[in-house]
Amino acid sequence: MSKTLIFGHKNPDTDTIASALAYADLKNQLGVEAVPARLGEVSKETQYALDYFGAEAPGLIEKVEDDVDSVILVDHNEFQQSVDNIQDVKIAEVIDHHRISNFETKEPLYFRAEPVGCTATILNKMFKENNVKVSKQTAGLLVSAIISDSLLLKSPTCTQEDVDAAKELAEIAGVDLEKYGLDMLKAGADLSDKSMVELLTMDAKEFSMGDAKVEIAQVNTVDASTIYENQQELEKEINNIIEEKNLDLFLFVVTDILENDSEVLALGQGKDKVEAAFDVSLDDNNRALLKGVVSRKKQIVTVLTEEFTK
Amino acid sequence: MSKTLIFGHKNPDTDTIASALAYADLKNQLGVEAVPARLGEVSKETQYALDYFGAEAPGLIEKVEDDVDSVILVDHNEFQQSVDNIQDVKIAEVIDHHRISNFETKEPLYFRAEPVGCTATILNKMFKENNVKVSKQTAGLLVSAIISDSLLLKSPTCTQEDVDAAKELAEIAGVDLEKYGLDMLKAGADLSDKSMVELLTMDAKEFSMGDAKVEIAQVNTVDASTIYENQQELEKEINNIIEEKNLDLFLFVVTDILENDSEVLALGQGKDKVEAAFDVSLDDNNRALLKGVVSRKKQIVTVLTEEFTK
Repeated sequence: MSKTLIFGHKNPDTDTIASALAYADLKNQLGVEAVPARLGEVSKETQYALDYFGAEAPGLIEKVEDDVDSVILVDHNEFQQSVDNIQDVKIAEVIDHHRISNFETKEPLYFRAEPVGCTATILNKMFKENNVKVSKQTAGLLVSAIISDSLLLKSPTCTQEDVDAAKELAEIAGVDLEKYGLDMLKAGADLSDKSMVELLTMDAKEFSMGDAKVEIAQVNTVDASTIYENQQELEKEINNIIEEKNLDLFLFVVTDILENDSEVLALGQGKDKVEAAFDVSLDDNNRALLKGVVSRKKQIVTVLTEEFTK
Repeated sequence: MSKTLIFGHKNPDTDTIASALAYADLKNQLGVEAVPARLGEVSKETQYALDYFGAEAPGLIEKVEDDVDSVILVDHNEFQQSVDNIQDVKIAEVIDHHRISNFETKEPLYFRAEPVGCTATILNKMFKENNVKVSKQTAGLLVSAIISDSLLLKSPTCTQEDVDAAKELAEIAGVDLEKYGLDMLKAGADLSDKSMVELLTMDAKEFSMGDAKVEIAQVNTVDASTIYENQQELEKEINNIIEEKNLDLFLFVVTDILENDSEVLALGQGKDKVEAAFDVSLDDNNRALLKGVVSRKKQIVTVLTEEFTK
């Protein structure tokens, strides 16, 4: 029997995990065999959502094995964010809400990207289009994904479609959107047991911007100052990553989910691009406060790419 | 007021022209201003369809002017097949049925690709999804596109969705699918007034295959032998194109729309890849008959790409 794997990006976030599980659920209900998978550790935030709705994380894979016929990518399309041997496998579908870059196929495929705040919002539509009812558990996972990607509907990436989907799904899931949402975000913002390296890698994504290689790591917190307590050590680790990956810029984004601001730390030869892109000056600690900036995709990647390709 | 242009690929075929017109029609009916455009001359086949349904060809553009806010690509996504300054404009949407390659954006967008035989089939669905009735004229253009891309439903790219859409649209357009289809294809297969250069460029597309640059030109005919009457001259022109564009391979595909075969002429240092890909030997005239091969997308690009990336 043909085997299809569904997975999101490396350093999985809640949208990536929830979308893989939900789309596999939809496929299975439509009589198509599909198995969800993940490419990395489950975050505390995601684990909170999984536990709350009694769901299990998809299985961890390191690469796509030979017995897999095709894969479906959710919540990403850029190959450097995908499984290492993505070039060797048949991509049957992509469901995503990001820019399209470093992606190609030999054959036509089903590719659906929409400029909404969350992949889960698209999947909620796909359940309807296929006349399949969303179960309580799947609704819980999908609403968790929207809360996560939109910082409880406050991110500028959040569209009316995301808001409508979140309300609808919260009702099916039987949760109070505000209360559940804040509890989940706080669970994810608990960084007390994270090592320096974990903080820098748990939600890191690499981007090509013009000829430059840029890595942007983001953490959510309710107290940014504690993260920067050991800044010297943090910088040492970042410089190691820059050297190892030959990066032009590493941008560490510490997002305060209550204030909706981000305090960033920029290292690498391209750090002046950060100053130009956001019209700020980095202080002696290579840091700057970006007021109202919470979305890597919409408020950081776009303006930085613009700056690097000028 | 914001201005959006909708256009298909260079060397436009019937699907590209019909899809630009039909999608602009849908957008306008939804209250969104959008103007169809084309990137090249209208073919005889397309002109037959336009005349039959009393439609006018979209305006010709050489580049996207500064007063345009965003563009919508139909029936293509590869930048080398698009308008010359595509890198400088905002792509708001893509509606397509081809492989994805050499395409990227800085921002999220609406991208809809489906593995069906024709962009018009996707557009027919989009009218329904938006509860907008397809007019007789638009139905006529859309069914013409499906007939063209599927060689009257006989190409291996043709799916059940294309067949269903074609029947439905033919009824709205008030035409007999078989009779109208054959008349339209024959109008397009009349190559009597074409110069050598026109034969080689009227439906030519360039592809990146691994490190190789490959151009594949296709013409439909009811009499392949006449095309090759002046083969020496044809080869001279092809060798000029190869030199000018620095191509590794130029493949000229003469498709007999009655026999559903193609007689190809291969020139360039990569011509042995054609022999390997199709398991044929080119004769002393660099030609080979490919039995049952009619689809550039599904039967030629895929196997050649495979061969060039081995």
